[in-house]
Amino acid sequence: MSDSLPQPLAPPSRILMGPGPSDTHPRVLSALGAPTVGHLDPFFLKTMNEVQAMLRELFQTKNEMTLAVSGTGSAGMETCVVNLIEPGDKVVVGVNGVFGGRMKDVFERAGADVLAIERPFGEVFSADEVAAAVQQHSPKVVGLVHAETSTGALQPLEEIAKIVHDAGGLLLADCVTSLGGLPVKVDEWGLDAVYSGTQKCLSCPPGLAPVTFSPKAVAAMDARTTKVASWYLDMSMVRNYWTDSSRAYHHTAPINMNYGLHEALRLALEEGLEERFARHRHNHLALRAGLEALGIEYAVEEANRLPMLNAVKIPDGIDDAGVRSQLLNEFGIEIGAGLGPMKGKTWRIGLMGDSSSARNVLLFLAALGKCLADQGSATQSGAGVAAANAFYSN
Amino acid sequence: MSDSLPQPLAPPSRILMGPGPSDTHPRVLSALGAPTVGHLDPFFLKTMNEVQAMLRELFQTKNEMTLAVSGTGSAGMETCVVNLIEPGDKVVVGVNGVFGGRMKDVFERAGADVLAIERPFGEVFSADEVAAAVQQHSPKVVGLVHAETSTGALQPLEEIAKIVHDAGGLLLADCVTSLGGLPVKVDEWGLDAVYSGTQKCLSCPPGLAPVTFSPKAVAAMDARTTKVASWYLDMSMVRNYWTDSSRAYHHTAPINMNYGLHEALRLALEEGLEERFARHRHNHLALRAGLEALGIEYAVEEANRLPMLNAVKIPDGIDDAGVRSQLLNEFGIEIGAGLGPMKGKTWRIGLMGDSSSARNVLLFLAALGKCLADQGSATQSGAGVAAANAFYSN
Repeated sequence: MSDSLPQPLAPPSRILMGPGPSDTHPRVLSALGAPTVGHLDPFFLKTMNEVQAMLRELFQTKNEMTLAVSGTGSAGMETCVVNLIEPGDKVVVGVNGVFGGRMKDVFERAGADVLAIERPFGEVFSADEVAAAVQQHSPKVVGLVHAETSTGALQPLEEIAKIVHDAGGLLLADCVTSLGGLPVKVDEWGLDAVYSGTQKCLSCPPGLAPVTFSPKAVAAMDARTTKVASWYLDMSMVRNYWTDSSRAYHHTAPINMNYGLHEALRLALEEGLEERFARHRHNHLALRAGLEALGIEYAVEEANRLPMLNAVKIPDGIDDAGVRSQLLNEFGIEIGAGLGPMKGKTWRIGLMGDSSSARNVLLFLAALGKCLADQGSATQSGAGVAAANAFYSN
Repeated sequence: MSDSLPQPLAPPSRILMGPGPSDTHPRVLSALGAPTVGHLDPFFLKTMNEVQAMLRELFQTKNEMTLAVSGTGSAGMETCVVNLIEPGDKVVVGVNGVFGGRMKDVFERAGADVLAIERPFGEVFSADEVAAAVQQHSPKVVGLVHAETSTGALQPLEEIAKIVHDAGGLLLADCVTSLGGLPVKVDEWGLDAVYSGTQKCLSCPPGLAPVTFSPKAVAAMDARTTKVASWYLDMSMVRNYWTDSSRAYHHTAPINMNYGLHEALRLALEEGLEERFARHRHNHLALRAGLEALGIEYAVEEANRLPMLNAVKIPDGIDDAGVRSQLLNEFGIEIGAGLGPMKGKTWRIGLMGDSSSARNVLLFLAALGKCLADQGSATQSGAGVAAANAFYSN
């Protein structure tokens, strides 16, 4: 091997406009490369405290048990499920996309008695639908996806939280794609367990999963009579390292990833949450104006669209993979393919975190126009202009 | 919060001589900060292939299923256990330290029928002891810790592998602390499932867990009749992303952590495995010479000592926490406290990866001499000299 050692990595220049990861801010890249310290070093313990305090700002919560799980967003999902569920516990889960389906699978592996309610990909659940399922099943936990990364649909949660609480249940929400780009008002809405990821609207590389648990969720964990199936994700031990003065060693925290998250959170709070949400919305509207000028339609009703994940229908006669390859190879732009039943039918255009910018919107529209023209479409002209106008007229 | 935003991180200068993390090589820090690309980007897929090829060199194996789990070493442990074990499967596990105890816990959570064999902390198991347990219990899997980070003891595995195989079982080995600092000959010894971590002798920050599975272990996974309890760690899906041409999306890989591991593996292979093992041994002998001159004894028999993790007895009358604090605050040196029954009785001095150097050995001995002298010990003189002599006489 030493004769044929791989070359040092030299990543190509990319603009990440897919479903995540998004572009990592240069300050976050720099923080990742800071010297490693020990996981019990006083400096790192202070860093953890600051990460927790800033995560609480992002989650808009006072929950003490707010921390970064040492895995990606899917590990955050599994953390919430395996800590809240004991075998036989009743659960209602909403499946209207890949991540709702994943949550159902994780609930089942945890031994839950699952009632799945379903909606076609791209649609969301009404409060009445959830209320009917809650009445039928009396669940300990209701699991819903706030921002379905596979479909681009936004699920309202506030009214549903009241319904779940009135029935004595806990509401678990997947906010992987929404946190940092849309309001996630954990306390005001009454969310009991929430997980997210670092690589979407926080613009930090993938590798950590911010989570937060309400006092009621913590009480449910404390009332368990069985061990959590996962040792690695067992919050009864992880919490002693993150939130207890004992700082009892559990596993070795990913030090440098936490450095990166610390800087990503600083950037988000420096910008201001309201300003950040407005930026995501603003760039989404500009992208929409440009896409409309190209004759491209959204796959999701306007009322339920995520600003940071634009799922659009691939025009008839256009080669899905061909366009995505051309965007990557000619322009360095990554967008996402469709998932599940939307595979081959939709593109997923991300405007997340640092990737949500006017220059990316305009470049993307110009690049997409060229790709479509190369495939014989005649609708590309004026797209950049329509988007540029939208920036200055909204 | 924006009024009281935490300051940018400015980590203190540390020399990491504890049980891990070790000092991260500057080239690895630089790789961590390279621009993020997508997890399905052709560049990243090539990076994964190269990481796998280099991990096979480190593990000295041809195993196809060799990859980096998206979590720390403990997630690697859990990956091996939950993929190999179905509820009711028989297991023998050796408990002679904290990590053997952890493995027992993880086996039990997976529903295994566990026979634990025990040895006092610091000791290792004889082949005969394991043979007797195998005969008694007929296990599907025998789990042992190759390098017990909590005690500094090295468990020989080759003879035991034959015993386990002759009885039709699989051998699972914890090589978190040994990989990259001691030979881990997966194919020659006949190890069926092995996990490690990045933050020990690979000198990459914590956050990934290299694992490898023999064809027999893969066959055992393929023969499962139940789903793996953990969705996140389910190798039947993870493998499709890492080793199958479909590159089917499972979870978003920690891109930048894999960059770091890529460079750490390049560094290890550039140095050469034999040269790297010799360096760890050489520096261990020098440290030992110096410690002996200080009158400090090892907690482990000479035959079973790990070169990269030196567990030593705290001299009578010396304040454990006081010395560790002084080393950190005056010299920036981190060493580890004892764990479990060794808490307060031992120090754990790591010489792992990039931290295993002559300058660290000499600096540490000089610093420790001062700390001991400050507590009234009169044995510190000549330690640096004894160690320096050892460098040039071996």
